[in-house]
Amino acid sequence: MDESEIRKWKKVSLEMARRVERAISPLIGTEEAGKIVKMGADGTPTKLIDLIAEDEVINVLKEVGEPVGLVTEESGSFDINKKVVSRNKKITFVVDPLDGTTNAIKNIPFYGISIAVAEHPQNRDPVLNDVVIGVVRNFTTRDTYTAIKDRGASLNGNEISPSSNKFLNEASVGAFIYGTRFKDLDNLCSKIRRMRILGAVALELSYVANGVYDAFIDIRGRLRIVDIAAAKLIVDEAGGIVTDHQGNVINGPLNVRERTSLVAAGNNALHSKIIEVLEEL
Amino acid sequence: MDESEIRKWKKVSLEMARRVERAISPLIGTEEAGKIVKMGADGTPTKLIDLIAEDEVINVLKEVGEPVGLVTEESGSFDINKKVVSRNKKITFVVDPLDGTTNAIKNIPFYGISIAVAEHPQNRDPVLNDVVIGVVRNFTTRDTYTAIKDRGASLNGNEISPSSNKFLNEASVGAFIYGTRFKDLDNLCSKIRRMRILGAVALELSYVANGVYDAFIDIRGRLRIVDIAAAKLIVDEAGGIVTDHQGNVINGPLNVRERTSLVAAGNNALHSKIIEVLEEL
Repeated sequence: MDESEIRKWKKVSLEMARRVERAISPLIGTEEAGKIVKMGADGTPTKLIDLIAEDEVINVLKEVGEPVGLVTEESGSFDINKKVVSRNKKITFVVDPLDGTTNAIKNIPFYGISIAVAEHPQNRDPVLNDVVIGVVRNFTTRDTYTAIKDRGASLNGNEISPSSNKFLNEASVGAFIYGTRFKDLDNLCSKIRRMRILGAVALELSYVANGVYDAFIDIRGRLRIVDIAAAKLIVDEAGGIVTDHQGNVINGPLNVRERTSLVAAGNNALHSKIIEVLEEL
Repeated sequence: MDESEIRKWKKVSLEMARRVERAISPLIGTEEAGKIVKMGADGTPTKLIDLIAEDEVINVLKEVGEPVGLVTEESGSFDINKKVVSRNKKITFVVDPLDGTTNAIKNIPFYGISIAVAEHPQNRDPVLNDVVIGVVRNFTTRDTYTAIKDRGASLNGNEISPSSNKFLNEASVGAFIYGTRFKDLDNLCSKIRRMRILGAVALELSYVANGVYDAFIDIRGRLRIVDIAAAKLIVDEAGGIVTDHQGNVINGPLNVRERTSLVAAGNNALHSKIIEVLEEL
């Protein structure tokens, strides 16, 4: 992606974040928001508020008038403006239109949007490594994390860097540890200073990028790759470490079926200590 | 407390919530907010933002001009306007001026205030059962929970009731389970549908009162009684159940040294199931 394209798609992403925020705001904390309206492409039920958020994502991309791919949890992978003649490379938006759906329905003030923009050859589907732009916006605080591949990450326009804390017993950790096959969770829980489960994965993974969290782990093994596509770039570009629970690089295809576990930390030392503890579970 | 006194002290409590919110707002998300300024009466360090919140609590009570006791984590128990001649009964405010201090410092949007008003004989210290008014306000959403003893609980003026869900595998549970002596936490984590740790105990306990949470548990055993004084009344009055982790009634003295574990649920059936699981840990 050249400079002008990066500027263009980043602008589209920021506009998308603002428009979705506006579209869903009347539904926050309402029973209606949680009504199941269909089955999503990922096999989980789609709620009304998810659908309204996704509709707005599609509207924004249609208005741009250029051919792009879109991957969302609700509708899977499809093309927008595909009649327009396109060039050799393809742009694919990978969007979680509402990160933290349950929170939004219950008016727990922690939800937002995750937008990743990938560039890849026309003849193959996008993978996580193709992501060039990542935007994560918290609809409650209006904080916006952005990252451009090889150019660093920022929060509200200011460059960010992750935590340098190397010690588990001083670490604030976002930790999705319920509903897992892991045993001996007390071993993990007793070693960490402070634990949070805020219920919005892209927002929480982004917290590693600017040190609000020293680390973030999700060992449920059912985290969708598409839901971390933007925030992973943000943490990578800020200088943090993101792997699966065994310390392996995550680089799956950007589709709604692909799932993973995740361990992110502000630095290698802390990351290694968490992987060690997980090995014992 | 008669009708006019209830009205008066409730009004003072609501005014206190608004004024503290205003006083701390410039400090949210700043490094300065987290500076340790002294050791608190409870033996934990007091941060600048805590002190500013507490100062405003004291200001509000001084301006009322009547003799009241005040209990806070930072300063312990003391009297305000004590030169004023007072009557037979004593009013004591038990306040956590900032519930969720760590969140406020990190700009995690989940913090607020907890205000309990107790009435008790002059010749003895207040206990939890003396609490007549409870006010918990979420500074992010501006939701305000209130309860008056024997008169029910409300959220933003509307009557509330807790969840009727009886099943662990359908339950959304706020669960402070890190840093505990309990083993086999995976036994608990695998049975619950959805877990949150939002990091502000009074706000989260209040979530049981209107069914945002089906249950809330804190098994760290270091929860201060003063921090749950308001929210416990709110859950009780809404019709929920609050005990310690063994199912015993919580009714300690309202001072900063007293600590407890806590299990709150929307109904007896769910409460019993949680106590059973905890017995196995």
